[in-house]
Amino acid sequence: MDVFERLKQAAAADWQSYVGHEFVWQLGVGTLPEAAFRAYLVQDYLFLIQFSRAWALAAYKSRTIPEIRAAQAGLSGILDETELHVRLCGRWGLSPEQLHSVPEHQATVAYTRFVLDCGAAGDLLDLHVALAPCVIGYAEIGKGLAPNGVAALKDHPYHEWIGEYAGDAFQQLAVGSRKLLDDLAARSMTERRFGELAALFGKASRLEADFWQMGLDAARG
Amino acid sequence: MDVFERLKQAAAADWQSYVGHEFVWQLGVGTLPEAAFRAYLVQDYLFLIQFSRAWALAAYKSRTIPEIRAAQAGLSGILDETELHVRLCGRWGLSPEQLHSVPEHQATVAYTRFVLDCGAAGDLLDLHVALAPCVIGYAEIGKGLAPNGVAALKDHPYHEWIGEYAGDAFQQLAVGSRKLLDDLAARSMTERRFGELAALFGKASRLEADFWQMGLDAARG
Amino acid sequence: MDVFERLKQAAAADWQSYVGHEFVWQLGVGTLPEAAFRAYLVQDYLFLIQFSRAWALAAYKSRTIPEIRAAQAGLSGILDETELHVRLCGRWGLSPEQLHSVPEHQATVAYTRFVLDCGAAGDLLDLHVALAPCVIGYAEIGKGLAPNGVAALKDHPYHEWIGEYAGDAFQQLAVGSRKLLDDLAARSMTERRFGELAALFGKASRLEADFWQMGLDAARG
Amino acid sequence: MDVFERLKQAAAADWQSYVGHEFVWQLGVGTLPEAAFRAYLVQDYLFLIQFSRAWALAAYKSRTIPEIRAAQAGLSGILDETELHVRLCGRWGLSPEQLHSVPEHQATVAYTRFVLDCGAAGDLLDLHVALAPCVIGYAEIGKGLAPNGVAALKDHPYHEWIGEYAGDAFQQLAVGSRKLLDDLAARSMTERRFGELAALFGKASRLEADFWQMGLDAARG
Repeated sequence: MDVFERLKQAAAADWQSYVGHEFVWQLGVGTLPEAAFRAYLVQDYLFLIQFSRAWALAAYKSRTIPEIRAAQAGLSGILDETELHVRLCGRWGLSPEQLHSVPEHQATVAYTRFVLDCGAAGDLLDLHVALAPCVIGYAEIGKGLAPNGVAALKDHPYHEWIGEYAGDAFQQLAVGSRKLLDDLAARSMTERRFGELAALFGKASRLEADFWQMGLDAARG
Repeated sequence: MDVFERLKQAAAADWQSYVGHEFVWQLGVGTLPEAAFRAYLVQDYLFLIQFSRAWALAAYKSRTIPEIRAAQAGLSGILDETELHVRLCGRWGLSPEQLHSVPEHQATVAYTRFVLDCGAAGDLLDLHVALAPCVIGYAEIGKGLAPNGVAALKDHPYHEWIGEYAGDAFQQLAVGSRKLLDDLAARSMTERRFGELAALFGKASRLEADFWQMGLDAARG
Repeated sequence: MDVFERLKQAAAADWQSYVGHEFVWQLGVGTLPEAAFRAYLVQDYLFLIQFSRAWALAAYKSRTIPEIRAAQAGLSGILDETELHVRLCGRWGLSPEQLHSVPEHQATVAYTRFVLDCGAAGDLLDLHVALAPCVIGYAEIGKGLAPNGVAALKDHPYHEWIGEYAGDAFQQLAVGSRKLLDDLAARSMTERRFGELAALFGKASRLEADFWQMGLDAARG
Repeated sequence: MDVFERLKQAAAADWQSYVGHEFVWQLGVGTLPEAAFRAYLVQDYLFLIQFSRAWALAAYKSRTIPEIRAAQAGLSGILDETELHVRLCGRWGLSPEQLHSVPEHQATVAYTRFVLDCGAAGDLLDLHVALAPCVIGYAEIGKGLAPNGVAALKDHPYHEWIGEYAGDAFQQLAVGSRKLLDDLAARSMTERRFGELAALFGKASRLEADFWQMGLDAARG
């Protein structure tokens, strides 16, 4: 059992509140109101700006060229992911400039700054555990929403979003992130620390669940 | 007009949403439900732990012994302030251990980590502008709630809280903080930067308003 | 006069001790002992690892996607520059693994960690002023050593090194860095702060001069 | 065997180059030229400014009020230690203002910024391992130079310095630091990480030895 699996089991209720959130369920069956998805997507764009900073923080905290290159690849991956958001938002007539002028929601501030602070105050393991619900969680959600593959979703209203996270590139990113957690843990995780990391992981998962909720609340008005 | 006054004017609506929040108004007239105050106070204790880290960050970012000593005094001030909270919470039978076991609310995470990230990513001026709604704002609120002085409040249900922030020690702290903003601005604030700082100040004020709202919601929920 | 020119004039003696160091002069006329160049180059490789971290720090401290992308480009540039070092060191039979096993010299630790600390404790302007002797200074030195262009140096013992820094790509990087200093200064440099930045720039220049000296000392034994 | 003892054994040569340095030996027998001591003491004052920032960094990186209070105590201890330096320097007619105007030596920059960067990029264990040669090493050196107690040294030319570090207050600080290393290691040190920490400890010890050497060189130069 790898470290990610252990974290999920230790924080099972928090994890479930996130990956099994009503937003995810409605997204999957296609009944999610467009207003909810849109509110989410705009905030997720602002979210990714902060997440790219988190990968830059990982590069800064690295000790060797291979570690720096790996973090730089993560940073590039996030910057590419923002292009999906720009493209999807563009269809609703939102320009990148408009995206930037939307105020960050409390839910966006809470999760992103929590992750950045975990990374600034802790070590790379703290940072990657705080990032894990996002990176590895989205891969798990994406895969779960495309049980018959991405091609089968072509008429689904949210096929582009699901395809992004169910797709091979993102799935491979998540595989790499799980392995990275194991490597970092082999270096600096004792059993005594595991409990702290599980608490951190649970908190990050709840903040992700709050982020979905923000989308639903926006549609309810 | 000092920098703090300029910031308040530039972000007047956000500032008003904070200092004129219903929570403050009810606290002042004494109709605030105890459940709201209690929910607030417990979260404010968790808040202060992060704020003491923000003052430590200020000491770390300082260049001279007088600057380091000043930040250390701020850190001590916050640690002392936590004792008011421990004392008040103790009356409701909450031990410090219990206080620590309460999960941080999203509103607490959002404002505290926002401030810490402003300080880590920016300079001392960014950090102190992000702290200003708390340090200087509480002094303003405290003074406003004790128009006839602290002694006149002895039968007020929240006299201890109001007395803390209306009292001379805290008022002097706020005077010092306003002066510090001016000193830091003289060093590194151009007019072009003022707009960014006003946006930061407005955002911090809104996050403070959300923090009051969290207290009210807890009593309604 | 741009900010970089002002910094050079304000710290003229320190700047001259760096760009006019005997190491540079001997490098230019080709009389620099190979042992001195080699000692320098190995340390410069270790230096660049820390400098790539400094660019990652700049990305972490950025606020917008264009700023993050620019810092990421700087990070990529440094990682590419390490390949020149690996190639040149390879000719003397030094593998990348061997390069990593050389202990960092005091001069390497001093300049690199000084820059990183300026960036961590200060703002982006502090960071880029501390980096300027390296980025913009090397461009100036490279250009000065190739007055008739890079092609004219083909028989020069150090043509590859001079060509790297006199070449268009590096010259353009330096042009961009000068412009970035101006942009950052327009945001957060008052005249009162200029004196502090000039002191920082002078100190960084002296630490660069010490770095050349380390190369000469190594050859003297 | 506690973690500190293990680190010393693993980096025995580096440790010995520091605690057994000629500067220490001459200091002990009283033959150290005053010029060497003076050059050292002035730089050590500049050193302590950075070290107080390192303790502030430890407070910022802490998670609980007891941890924050402990780091704050360390910060206070360092600020008090600077007063010994101010007093001793005052005897030679050096005011605090003059002390601040002395340029930092390369050796001072190298060790202090190395420690600060270890702490910023790593976790609290990295930071405290980097600090250990200073905090725990000075206690060991002080004790070794006062084998018959501090009172026996009253005619020794450097009795005040030796008395500071051989005295109970500093010895207790070192005992606390050793225990802290054990606590931090129980949380986040695996055997695989121990090797990295020993390398870090060895490097910090060498940078301390270079610091003594700077004092000797000043007297020779």
